[in-house]
Amino acid sequence: MLSVRDIVGRVSAGKSTAEAELAATQERIDAREPAIQAFASRPEGLRAGTGPLAGIACGVKDIIDTADLPTRMGSPIYEGWQPRADAPIVMALKAAGASVAGKTHTTAFAFLDPAPTHNPHDATASPGGSSAGSAAAVAAGMIPLAIGTQTGGSVIRPASYCGVAAIKTSYGLLPTVGVKPFSWSLDTLGLMAASADDLGLALAAIAQRPELDAGPATLQGLRIGVTRQDFAGAAEPACETALQRLSEIAAAAGAVIVPLETPAALAAAYEAHAPLQDYEARHALAWEYRHHREAIPPKLRSYLDGVQSAGAASYDEARRLSRRGRDAARGFFGACDVVISYAAPGEAPDTIGSTGDSKFNRLWTLLGVPCLTIPVLQGPRGLPVGIQIIAGFGADEVVIAVAKALERLVGAEA
Amino acid sequence: MLSVRDIVGRVSAGKSTAEAELAATQERIDAREPAIQAFASRPEGLRAGTGPLAGIACGVKDIIDTADLPTRMGSPIYEGWQPRADAPIVMALKAAGASVAGKTHTTAFAFLDPAPTHNPHDATASPGGSSAGSAAAVAAGMIPLAIGTQTGGSVIRPASYCGVAAIKTSYGLLPTVGVKPFSWSLDTLGLMAASADDLGLALAAIAQRPELDAGPATLQGLRIGVTRQDFAGAAEPACETALQRLSEIAAAAGAVIVPLETPAALAAAYEAHAPLQDYEARHALAWEYRHHREAIPPKLRSYLDGVQSAGAASYDEARRLSRRGRDAARGFFGACDVVISYAAPGEAPDTIGSTGDSKFNRLWTLLGVPCLTIPVLQGPRGLPVGIQIIAGFGADEVVIAVAKALERLVGAEA
Repeated sequence: MLSVRDIVGRVSAGKSTAEAELAATQERIDAREPAIQAFASRPEGLRAGTGPLAGIACGVKDIIDTADLPTRMGSPIYEGWQPRADAPIVMALKAAGASVAGKTHTTAFAFLDPAPTHNPHDATASPGGSSAGSAAAVAAGMIPLAIGTQTGGSVIRPASYCGVAAIKTSYGLLPTVGVKPFSWSLDTLGLMAASADDLGLALAAIAQRPELDAGPATLQGLRIGVTRQDFAGAAEPACETALQRLSEIAAAAGAVIVPLETPAALAAAYEAHAPLQDYEARHALAWEYRHHREAIPPKLRSYLDGVQSAGAASYDEARRLSRRGRDAARGFFGACDVVISYAAPGEAPDTIGSTGDSKFNRLWTLLGVPCLTIPVLQGPRGLPVGIQIIAGFGADEVVIAVAKALERLVGAEA
Repeated sequence: MLSVRDIVGRVSAGKSTAEAELAATQERIDAREPAIQAFASRPEGLRAGTGPLAGIACGVKDIIDTADLPTRMGSPIYEGWQPRADAPIVMALKAAGASVAGKTHTTAFAFLDPAPTHNPHDATASPGGSSAGSAAAVAAGMIPLAIGTQTGGSVIRPASYCGVAAIKTSYGLLPTVGVKPFSWSLDTLGLMAASADDLGLALAAIAQRPELDAGPATLQGLRIGVTRQDFAGAAEPACETALQRLSEIAAAAGAVIVPLETPAALAAAYEAHAPLQDYEARHALAWEYRHHREAIPPKLRSYLDGVQSAGAASYDEARRLSRRGRDAARGFFGACDVVISYAAPGEAPDTIGSTGDSKFNRLWTLLGVPCLTIPVLQGPRGLPVGIQIIAGFGADEVVIAVAKALERLVGAEA
């Protein structure tokens, strides 16, 4: 995979230029795109910017508005649709010096109907969704950085399936203005890259928060909570192996491993994700459903058929449970420095017909807390399995620093 | 002014038809539009819908996406801009049977540079802003209902200046998807109509929350807190007279008037409005500022020049103060059934060069609590002065019911 740190290091040291790095990236995109199908649209050529990310070509999920590339939302309803303005996240990317590599394939409106993208590790396996093109393009070494969005598990899950690092940021850290909404209380931006180290560098530059690019955390004495999210059901054995392996690696480095019970308020908040999303998706896609129902793919159409009765009472109750969950999360996360858990229920599904299951992601999305997944091992089918590092609201700096420390140890052992 | 209740009453009783009501409304729009300048664009003709609001022509602020009318945002940057989809609030309007009367003039991007609209009470006075066209069109009797948005005081202030009733809803009650963002933590939808009674009827239908159209509250024994918002500075004497008059009317009907101290956490939250908005506006309008700075009108351009240095630290602190303010608001509102306060600092400014001051609105917008203004008296220049009724988060039903009771008494006395 391409490394953000290496590229900007070469450019800033004068060993290379942003233009040369972009040209090299362009060659990699051109070489792999026919097999991977990561991009919905691409610019004529990559022009270098100015700033800390000069030379970095970044994929942008195709539900995010761009002023000079169409934004198709993964749907023929938006065929050829050309927004007037760049979304703020795209402006922030460009302000940091990065270039837009292209718009990456998304499932239709970021739901469950598969995108045309293939998993670089196995062309018959799913890359996950909904940020399929972003995860696959990074995993295939086509681009060093990509932007995705998560409403259930649409950043962390495809990253785990494709074997890349990814962060879903704290709610509100990055603006979702100009991102096609599915559920406005849940929709959150995230980044994908080869490593947590790259994520920290890129996110610090994009969010203009230098503290996000600090050094790796000291594991000695660090309290790492472990949750298996029993409320969400079981994971495949490979995920349990990965969770235990990461715990052992951390413990060997001096971390204190703390098994965590899930407070009832968090389990209740987990259950609130569905009614919250149902009501908001019903309204967010009201125009598309009313005027273009037949053009909506089957999984989303069936889902929208079902949520047309989602009413205010269940929505209000879901918002109350979310609020209580966020209150309870302070205590839950306060007991440790970070929490680790499964990033996905297993290896990527062995069919491109399913994008997998977000059950181990939904609670954290609803709580608005930062999650960062790193690849930990390969499962029985040879596909990557990630573990996510999670912390309390606003502690993006902490999950990045801890993930940086852990990924070094995982890498050293592999 | 046109009454929503009267129109839907006539239609449902078979005394009139939705088509006939819309035709009558169209005549009133045509007659007054040259003088008032409320509309940025209008459809070819008004087609009747089906539902509880059939026959109601509703103005839609021109920062709200519409699929069959351009959405100009009050700016030449969006001249001729045609969104693909209706915003969810427009879909909800239509689902309730209402018709879009047209797009109402907004200040550019809902900031402070005046719209071309005139105050129906005095052509040389400001209609307020930013929802200028919505307030003026209702006040001029052109339409019975209009939609506006409030980030500081952009619903309640123009309503007070124009002498109409208006509600800024609880944050999240109505979806802001498809509404051009200025500050996504603050932007909130509201309705304007001739009376609180009309607002309850319309909001119940649009939000599909029948409880919002309950009868007037019983004033006997009702606890009404009074706040003068000392943290925001002084109001004109006419506003103080209006506040006292409404208190006396309520007390005569048996309400208990409770002078309220403002907790320090609320005064601190008031101060957090500016840094919160500054950071978000900087990002929300990043594309327009970067690519079309010269086309941005002077007040907004100067504001955006100033907020380019708005950074993450002051933003994070503002979010913390907002959160603490919302916690403190529970106790503040818990002491009474509703709170009343000035809706604006005085009568409408006597120049169309200023849209007035949102200082008595900003705290409530930031707290996300419902506010409803009703006209209470005329000031020394013969212009209307409103008082707003405020309650805790989610108590939209309460402010409507109390406002309905109070407006009857104000009307009986006038």
